[in-house]
Formats: sequence, C-alpha cells, structure tokens
Amino acid sequence: MQGSHGGRTGERPPRPGETTQRPGEMPGAPRATAPAWGAAHPAAARSDADRNAVRRRPIGVFDSGIGGLTVVGALRRCLPGEDLIYFGDAARVPYGTKSAATVTRFARESVTFLARREIKLLVVACNTASALALPALRETVAIPMLGVLEPGAAEAARQTRSGRIGVIGTAATIASGAYRRALADRDAGFEIVERPCPLFVPLAEEGWVAGEVPRQIATRYLAPLRKAQIDTLILGCTHYPLLKEVIAEAAGATVTLVDSAEATAHETATLLEARALRNPSATGGSCRVFVSDRPRRFSEIGAAFLGEPLTSVSLVDQSDLPWYER
Amino acid sequence: MQGSHGGRTGERPPRPGETTQRPGEMPGAPRATAPAWGAAHPAAARSDADRNAVRRRPIGVFDSGIGGLTVVGALRRCLPGEDLIYFGDAARVPYGTKSAATVTRFARESVTFLARREIKLLVVACNTASALALPALRETVAIPMLGVLEPGAAEAARQTRSGRIGVIGTAATIASGAYRRALADRDAGFEIVERPCPLFVPLAEEGWVAGEVPRQIATRYLAPLRKAQIDTLILGCTHYPLLKEVIAEAAGATVTLVDSAEATAHETATLLEARALRNPSATGGSCRVFVSDRPRRFSEIGAAFLGEPLTSVSLVDQSDLPWYER
Repeated sequence: MQGSHGGRTGERPPRPGETTQRPGEMPGAPRATAPAWGAAHPAAARSDADRNAVRRRPIGVFDSGIGGLTVVGALRRCLPGEDLIYFGDAARVPYGTKSAATVTRFARESVTFLARREIKLLVVACNTASALALPALRETVAIPMLGVLEPGAAEAARQTRSGRIGVIGTAATIASGAYRRALADRDAGFEIVERPCPLFVPLAEEGWVAGEVPRQIATRYLAPLRKAQIDTLILGCTHYPLLKEVIAEAAGATVTLVDSAEATAHETATLLEARALRNPSATGGSCRVFVSDRPRRFSEIGAAFLGEPLTSVSLVDQSDLPWYER
Repeated sequence: MQGSHGGRTGERPPRPGETTQRPGEMPGAPRATAPAWGAAHPAAARSDADRNAVRRRPIGVFDSGIGGLTVVGALRRCLPGEDLIYFGDAARVPYGTKSAATVTRFARESVTFLARREIKLLVVACNTASALALPALRETVAIPMLGVLEPGAAEAARQTRSGRIGVIGTAATIASGAYRRALADRDAGFEIVERPCPLFVPLAEEGWVAGEVPRQIATRYLAPLRKAQIDTLILGCTHYPLLKEVIAEAAGATVTLVDSAEATAHETATLLEARALRNPSATGGSCRVFVSDRPRRFSEIGAAFLGEPLTSVSLVDQSDLPWYER
C-alpha cells in the first residue's frame, strides 16, 4: 500500500486553511488555464497529461465509522465516474459523544491517512467532524475539502417555507452550534430547534430501524421539534438516513427531511467542476474501503448504508496509521 | 502528577503472566515472612516500614469508560480504608463493539497509565477487557491483577440451583466465549445461554433506565434466556446494574441477577488478605478519578454509577498517556 505513495515532486497543493469555495467562483466547464485558485493547485501542473493525471485521482471520503457510506452511495450515484477511497475509524467510533479536542485529534490522524493516498479532494462525511474539526483539518492537509454540514444547511434553507427548521444530530454536533450558525448565516430570521439523539447511532448499527422500539425513541426525541411546528428537518448525522421512516413518522407528515448525503454529493460535483478536477471518465468509478477495526463486520452491515453490496473492506495496518507512529 | 512517580528502586514486582490466585493459597492475616508468592513480590521488601508503604499504596481500577464506577462503589463499601485510582478511557469508549486486537491495544495503554501511579493491585473493571485482554495485560504490567469475569462466573456458579445460567454482555464479551469457558470450568454440566445486548450501554449512558423504551428493549433481548428457563443471570457488563430493574422484570421474577461489581469487590478483599497487601487503615480511603476525555460529563453522570457524589474528575494530559508518545 505504501508503495503507491510518493512521486509528488513538482506538484504543489493549495495553501493550508484555504476554503473550499471562493466568493464569486462559479461552477462551470473545466478551465485549462489560469484557474481561480492560482498556480499552487495540483490541477495547475505543467502539461495536459499532468492535469489529466490529477483529475483521475480518487476522492477521499472520511467518517468516524460506517455512517459515511450513505455519502459514498450518493457520490456513486451522482458521480459514477469517480474513484473513491473511504476511511472509517471503526476502532474509535463513535465521535459524537466525545470532546472537540478528541474529535479533532482523531479526525486529523484519519485524514492524514487518506491524504497519503494522493486524493484530489476530501469529503468529510462525518457530521461531528464537520461541525468540530473542519478548520483544523484544513490546516492539517492541503487538499480541497468539504464537509457535510454546509451542504445540508444550504439545502434546508432552500426547502423551508415557514423558516422553522429542526436539526437532529449527535450530542457533540448539536453542542457545537455549527448547524445553528450555518443556518443563521443564510437567514438570521430562521427559527432553529435542535435536539441531540444519541440512541439513533446504536439503533442503526444494531439494525433496529423499524418497529416499536425505534418508533418510541424517535417520538420521544422529536417531541419538542414537532411542538415547535418545524417544516424542515436536517438529518445531521450520516447514520440517520437508515432511520428515515420512523423519523419521518415522528416528525409529522408535513415535514421535509434533508439528508446531507445527497446535498453533499451535489456540492462535490459542483466543486469538482469549479476546480476542473472532474474525472474524464463518466462511468466505472471504483470504491475502496479502509477501516481501522473489524473489516468483516463493516462489510456485513455496510451494504445497508451504501445501498449496494460492499465486497472488499481492508483493515488498515497499524503501522499505516499516523497515531501508531511511536 | 508526574512528580509522584519513580522511587521504585529495589522493589521487584511479580513475574508477568502470574495468576492472581495460586491453588491452595488461602485468604488470611497478612504474613510477614516468606509469603507463598516468593521474594519477588513488593510486599516482601526488606523492612516492616517498606512493607507498610506498599500496603498503603492505592488500588488501580480500569474501565473503558464510566461503567467501572459500579465496581469502585462496591470496592468503597467493601474496603473503605483503601485508596483507589480509577482510569476511564472515555476518548475511545466503547470497547464492546471492537475487535480483540483493538481492545487489547487500548487496554494495554490504559493499564500502563495506572501502573505508573505505584498501584499495589489492578482491578480490570471492564468485562470486555477482562474477557479479551487479561493475559496480555498480565504480560504488560507486573502487578497483581484481577478482572470482573471470574468473580462473576464464580458467584453465578454458587447461586444457580437448576444449572441453567444466562449471560448478557457486549458483543465482544459474548463473542469471546470467556464466560462460557469460566462457567464450564466450574461445572461442565451447566447449561449456558448467552446474549449480546448492544443497546444497554447507550441506554444507561443516556440515563433512560426506566420506562417503556428500556423495558421493550430488555424484553426483546432477554426473550431467548427466559424461554430457556434460566434461574441465574450474569450482568456481564458494568453498565448493566443501572438497568437492573428492567432487566429483572424481563428475565422473570424467579431469576437471580449476579452483579459482578459486588463479587469482584469481595474477591479483591480476599486477594489483598492473601497477599498481605491490605491497607492498615480501616476507613478514610480516597478515590481519584482520571479520564481520557470529557471530565465534566463524567462527573455529571458518574454519581449514578458510583452510588455517591463524584466531585473531582481529572482529564489526563495527552503527554501522560502512552499512546500519545510519538
């Protein structure tokens, strides 16, 4: 695996801290010369052959565990020509019950693992890491990056009619206030009702996604949002789409659910176009999955998240992860 | 914190891999000379003053998170003169969904942290670590050690009348077969019915320990054990005592619940006597709690596990943990 790295000489990635989208930058056809992000970007390498090589690189997708496979599924439907490399930090999952400092440290190490695989773009498919660690991750690796939080918030802002938006997520995501800020940035008049739902992740991982138990838990969690008469609900955790039916029932028939996975896939397509990073192939993209623990269990329960069979899951060798470097 | 270490010169701990109890070794009054474990043990140090210093050392208690505080509570009631140092690996909790290799690695690092604090005995208060990692931990640190699994199995073997024993625990504990082996070692005729209950840990941490949701979950998990007409049920996870009422109801009125915490505290007392390690003070033992993440949350929800207020919880500095040594 390590043999595939290196050979980056002459390519200079964008500056640390660079944002994923620049004001005024419009999505459009690939631009062959003088892109908006300047000569520092890998796609600005010398020759057409070099630029094509960069475009053929995979997209990295990072999640704390298995939930990010819902984003991978959406990416594969939206961008079938792109190669994807996924890393799930199954050894230290969940992130959503932990502190910002710990989430940031774990996310940094995971992202470094993906960055070594010559990815052209990184999707942080974990709401908790997107909410707590995105600025730190941008300082860690100089790769264009987007999280699931902004696309989800943007989609909710587009969908709402009443301006009353509900957000559910892990304890850490909700405590961070990141969705509240992202929504308020779009319209200060939005009325936002948030609720952490810690039991949804273990329910989804246990496969108890229908029936009386998840229905009762969803009813209890969503009671304050229903009372506040929200018309739009952000599923602010990549595990939650698996519980979509019971969540929809508990939220009420008139509420629109926003699944960040779909919104993030569309935002990824926009970003690839804007940066001239889209793979020239329109179909046949591959998907490689790495985890830091229990690859067999991951492939067994992963198919439900991915929406297609998940055949090959690799355990990351300890020596291949930066946190084992002692 | 680091200033309190060192000064171990001349003390030689027992051999790695040494078992916590030797066949034929009886509990009794502290023996001043020629103990059964030979000259290698710290209590066999030269002078009476040295021996007393060793006896006054704290007992280390390790858990993956907060559940082990039920063991700390039992130890404080059973051994009120002992000083206790607890470490909860809140940054990487839970262990019960992870592989044996990952549990062993995390447990090793946690135990090394406690071993540096000059403890005289280590209680592995985590069922998952007891089931999967005890032999590896005995190789890692040369300190007398006991887990929660053997005392729980011994107590169940004493309690059962019909010989039909149920065991509930994390996925990793049940998959290990460790309880099954420990019970079969005591009586090959026991009929053992096991069931992993992954939702019990998040339920206890969420504080949902009574009412319809935990009752329904318990009923579903315990149905096969009830059908098998067990008369004794081992609560094979230190979180489960918090759900004792709904578990007892779901198991059936005639079933005896075995809480490893109490059994482990009694076994600890026996071991201290046998090794002449009991603290000369009969009361006034202290309790220091260290965690690898979120000390505030730990002190907030820890009181329910401990059975008394939990005022001081310290976050372990990253540089103080072996896994941060890079």
